[in-house]
Amino acid sequence: MVVVMKQEASDADIEAVAEKVRAAGGEAFVSRGTVHTIIGLVGDTARFQTIPFKQMPGVDHVIQVGKPYKMVARDLHPETTTVKVGTTPVGRDSFTIIAGPCAVESADQAFAATRAAKAAGATILRGDVYKPRTSPYSFQGLGELGLEILAECRRDTGLPIIVEVVDVSQVEHVAEIADCIRVGTRNAQNFELLKEVGQTHKPVMLKRGLAMTVEEWLQAAEYVAQRGNSEIILCERGIRTFEPSTRNTLDLAGMAVAQRETHLPVIVDPSHAVGKHDLVAPMSLASVAAGADAVMIDVHADPDQALCDGPQALTPDEMMLLGRELEAVAAAVGRPVNH
Amino acid sequence: MVVVMKQEASDADIEAVAEKVRAAGGEAFVSRGTVHTIIGLVGDTARFQTIPFKQMPGVDHVIQVGKPYKMVARDLHPETTTVKVGTTPVGRDSFTIIAGPCAVESADQAFAATRAAKAAGATILRGDVYKPRTSPYSFQGLGELGLEILAECRRDTGLPIIVEVVDVSQVEHVAEIADCIRVGTRNAQNFELLKEVGQTHKPVMLKRGLAMTVEEWLQAAEYVAQRGNSEIILCERGIRTFEPSTRNTLDLAGMAVAQRETHLPVIVDPSHAVGKHDLVAPMSLASVAAGADAVMIDVHADPDQALCDGPQALTPDEMMLLGRELEAVAAAVGRPVNH
Amino acid sequence: MVVVMKQEASDADIEAVAEKVRAAGGEAFVSRGTVHTIIGLVGDTARFQTIPFKQMPGVDHVIQVGKPYKMVARDLHPETTTVKVGTTPVGRDSFTIIAGPCAVESADQAFAATRAAKAAGATILRGDVYKPRTSPYSFQGLGELGLEILAECRRDTGLPIIVEVVDVSQVEHVAEIADCIRVGTRNAQNFELLKEVGQTHKPVMLKRGLAMTVEEWLQAAEYVAQRGNSEIILCERGIRTFEPSTRNTLDLAGMAVAQRETHLPVIVDPSHAVGKHDLVAPMSLASVAAGADAVMIDVHADPDQALCDGPQALTPDEMMLLGRELEAVAAAVGRPVNH
Amino acid sequence: MVVVMKQEASDADIEAVAEKVRAAGGEAFVSRGTVHTIIGLVGDTARFQTIPFKQMPGVDHVIQVGKPYKMVARDLHPETTTVKVGTTPVGRDSFTIIAGPCAVESADQAFAATRAAKAAGATILRGDVYKPRTSPYSFQGLGELGLEILAECRRDTGLPIIVEVVDVSQVEHVAEIADCIRVGTRNAQNFELLKEVGQTHKPVMLKRGLAMTVEEWLQAAEYVAQRGNSEIILCERGIRTFEPSTRNTLDLAGMAVAQRETHLPVIVDPSHAVGKHDLVAPMSLASVAAGADAVMIDVHADPDQALCDGPQALTPDEMMLLGRELEAVAAAVGRPVNH
Repeated sequence: MVVVMKQEASDADIEAVAEKVRAAGGEAFVSRGTVHTIIGLVGDTARFQTIPFKQMPGVDHVIQVGKPYKMVARDLHPETTTVKVGTTPVGRDSFTIIAGPCAVESADQAFAATRAAKAAGATILRGDVYKPRTSPYSFQGLGELGLEILAECRRDTGLPIIVEVVDVSQVEHVAEIADCIRVGTRNAQNFELLKEVGQTHKPVMLKRGLAMTVEEWLQAAEYVAQRGNSEIILCERGIRTFEPSTRNTLDLAGMAVAQRETHLPVIVDPSHAVGKHDLVAPMSLASVAAGADAVMIDVHADPDQALCDGPQALTPDEMMLLGRELEAVAAAVGRPVNH
Repeated sequence: MVVVMKQEASDADIEAVAEKVRAAGGEAFVSRGTVHTIIGLVGDTARFQTIPFKQMPGVDHVIQVGKPYKMVARDLHPETTTVKVGTTPVGRDSFTIIAGPCAVESADQAFAATRAAKAAGATILRGDVYKPRTSPYSFQGLGELGLEILAECRRDTGLPIIVEVVDVSQVEHVAEIADCIRVGTRNAQNFELLKEVGQTHKPVMLKRGLAMTVEEWLQAAEYVAQRGNSEIILCERGIRTFEPSTRNTLDLAGMAVAQRETHLPVIVDPSHAVGKHDLVAPMSLASVAAGADAVMIDVHADPDQALCDGPQALTPDEMMLLGRELEAVAAAVGRPVNH
Repeated sequence: MVVVMKQEASDADIEAVAEKVRAAGGEAFVSRGTVHTIIGLVGDTARFQTIPFKQMPGVDHVIQVGKPYKMVARDLHPETTTVKVGTTPVGRDSFTIIAGPCAVESADQAFAATRAAKAAGATILRGDVYKPRTSPYSFQGLGELGLEILAECRRDTGLPIIVEVVDVSQVEHVAEIADCIRVGTRNAQNFELLKEVGQTHKPVMLKRGLAMTVEEWLQAAEYVAQRGNSEIILCERGIRTFEPSTRNTLDLAGMAVAQRETHLPVIVDPSHAVGKHDLVAPMSLASVAAGADAVMIDVHADPDQALCDGPQALTPDEMMLLGRELEAVAAAVGRPVNH
Repeated sequence: MVVVMKQEASDADIEAVAEKVRAAGGEAFVSRGTVHTIIGLVGDTARFQTIPFKQMPGVDHVIQVGKPYKMVARDLHPETTTVKVGTTPVGRDSFTIIAGPCAVESADQAFAATRAAKAAGATILRGDVYKPRTSPYSFQGLGELGLEILAECRRDTGLPIIVEVVDVSQVEHVAEIADCIRVGTRNAQNFELLKEVGQTHKPVMLKRGLAMTVEEWLQAAEYVAQRGNSEIILCERGIRTFEPSTRNTLDLAGMAVAQRETHLPVIVDPSHAVGKHDLVAPMSLASVAAGADAVMIDVHADPDQALCDGPQALTPDEMMLLGRELEAVAAAVGRPVNH
């Protein structure tokens, strides 16, 4: 349930609503927009039914039915949101290339990948230091050392960095260093983590879970928005299907549906979706043609030696070529690429 | 099992191999290529193991292991095949727009849709007269009358027509009239139908089944090729997944995998994949950017009145706009659009 | 749309309704029940809207909305149907074991399997002579010779036989010989085949398609029922999912849903669902415990030599053991096993 | 990689191996079994390749290839493990009924449900206080108050309790109170949480993720085992498929596969798998017939008023009936029900 306040509602009006909610055993999350302030109610919605919100001062209306997400819904925010990662905008007015190593393995490896990313036109860097791996016997990431290396890469290139968090305990620290925090596929319904990143002041990239419908994905984003952080970038990265020839099935139409349902930017990670090097370029071009707001690409100077997901990484030369191709297709669909 | 003959093999050499196969209770399908003649063996492969093919005159080599499709595999035919539908080529050297009504409902409706298709740049027409419908209570197609109307549309526009067959008994007749026969999603593993269309001399479009892996799709194509007809166009049209926001999940990466595995042209039907009007254009543009050899689009002058799949049809105006956008993206990826 | 006639409706009343439907370009399929006669309307339902059925003599009511299947729905036939295959009843009052070879390979192999089936408690035999195989290079069945062998097995054991048809052209002939015709998974939406078996007077077993929802499965059954044949047995045999450790994912809950939605018997084929020998027994026992009306099991005297699906076949000893276990679990859930 | 020590290996031998691993930048997790001590290696396996483990004192052999899980694999532990929850054994020698409220809503509601559970034959109670809900607007659980209520229910019934944790920060506290900690479906690949519960001394129930293969599920269990806790119960609860008539698709064959692959007990939660009240009993009976080691059932005295998952809860009367039916089927398959 969401209570939408009138434009002229006072702080006291807002607090009065929040107080009623708390008295009913719930929590109220206040999100102040440029036009309306919106109060998201969490808890037993049945108990909220008896509160006469509509008769309270400053209340415009109450949204009770319909879509299970509200704060991220386009209905309430018809204008699209542009999220700034560092100084790079991610939104519908431009197209952004995000690239870098899947995992940070060493300073040399990270520098090679991030410099190649920049040379190819990337304006945001990726690179992970905590890796959620299916097998406990796989490389788990460099942790703190990796963060330091990434910060070096940022100084070196001048580009902002996106870093994944895999536990609540890491959020505060990563948020201090990274320009954007990412919640990965396997934690896409780790609601405690979603709540935690919702309390930071850094943009959050939320990957779609392997078995998540678009609707559930937006509900996960709602967990973040409800805590006050609406700087959210949604990232489609393939869903799990019966088809074995690709790692996952890239759901570009799902990306397009999400763009119609939410005001948030929606991007694509073709590298993790397909898991195969030679399909990354065609799927990247398809993504920009379909209207994605950015693509995020794995780069590795020596994919055969990669400790994580080598088969899907582009070499610097391939990344350079893809950068040019993305530029051409983006121009064809009227999207300027960020530089 | 496939026996590949030497370039200099005589007809007698070929017949001798075929005779051995028949003697072992199998069938031999001879496919004469420009370089090699290939003999596909059908039946109990265990029994063929004892035949000393490699020692027979004219035999180059025998393919026994590996991929479960052979005649359609790129390994044996490294050069891509261009299939001509009427005079329109479908292949990797150009990009083709196929459009028209989902189902032929009346002469007026069909003329309106096919003229709109042509105006928007289509060089092949679609239009069905036998509709495989999930519900027996849905419109089942006009049958023979529909075929006559389509033939009129061809005369009117000068463009070739693609028509779906849903039973063996229709194949001969439809092959006489249509320029390309289509086997639909629900019959993609109707092997008797595949064998029958394999014996015609018209190009065959083979849609991917809803639960078909790319490998199984190519095996279905192998049924057609084995009967001697290798003028096959594969058509990706979405697979069944858990995601409910689109009718099916368009598997563009699966299309790209198929292009790498087979020498046949591979195209996309975004209309049936997504089932939603406003997603047809972005998925069409994504298809050409990803390297599809053609797209096939439903057009209807009055989608609200359509007897079949109205929600996914483009209006003539939308089709016209999409034609221009396809032209721009095709140019960006270096593919000339057929005119 | 379905027109339900009053109990006292005359033949003339029924014909009058059918005539109106035909005049509107549709087809009317009359199904005479013990209480009500039901007329199924096929064609453009929009055109039927204008016909004042409710004002016609003998018409009780018209069903327009709701479920997309009607004649097979439990709503209209609250009592469950028992289908007789030969003299063996398949329905909710007993539990039936169906067993035999996956494919008929030779007289010896078929006799060994069908005798083992009978010894283990089977009262219906399975055995296929036309095999729809994913690969054109796999064994395709013995055809007519296989039918003769199966008829011999029937004489030998005294048990009725179920045989799959894969094309319209086989239906009449197989219906003369077999006691029950089966439409397989890959033809589950081959609507022409469904219509054809709907016109025979033999029971029809309809397997669920790999990507078919329960609702679509019942719509496929409706195609059969609409042609006048309501002796239909539904057979769950696994759906396609992402899980690779079994051939398909047995959907026992889907079986149970189908039992609640339709008055028809619903059975399970665990052999084809799991594709693994050691899982057949536990899934068979699960099926009877879940309320399935029968199980259908592959048996082969020498699974390693089987030409089709050997890995899932039970040996005669294993089948004998399973027969005893099925008896025990059936007794525990109050279902007498047919003998 | 796993190093298996000889039976006579000394603590110094074990420490020497662990030291080598740490020197190579990895972590070594020592698990002392009754026969062998096993050392699980985490980190970059490539670096471990150069360590001459086999030549070190006390080392029996090294497992490098094959399945991606080792400590939970049946290969290494051919005897099945029985996990004790309180005094109730969960394993292959008996059959266990687990029941209780989905979520603890109040003391009255919890007492009613847990008493009904006990009366019906349950020997372990379920009941959640932290609920991972898809929507942030749904009831999120009573938290600490709920834990106190559950502890009261335990005193009242004398039965042990299973409680879900949804974040690392809760693990220590819940482990002090509950008899078994559960990691839920949405956290099944929250690896930090898996590692944390692996460090407790309480049994862990690990639910299968919605898009998890059996192999991945066992790898998740390996995360827990690797930290030293091998008291793990696996719980199948449905996977996500295209079928909409049930909440998820219960994969009983996947349960049976897991039982063959691991020595750990594997149970079924039919309530969450199907999400429909009337399918819980048939799927519970199917589970015991298929060999599951336990079933876990939602009970609610007034399902219409439930704050969470009411549609799938059994009433006390239904639970009582199911208890009797489970007893009968368990007897038929030779499994004594725990009392």
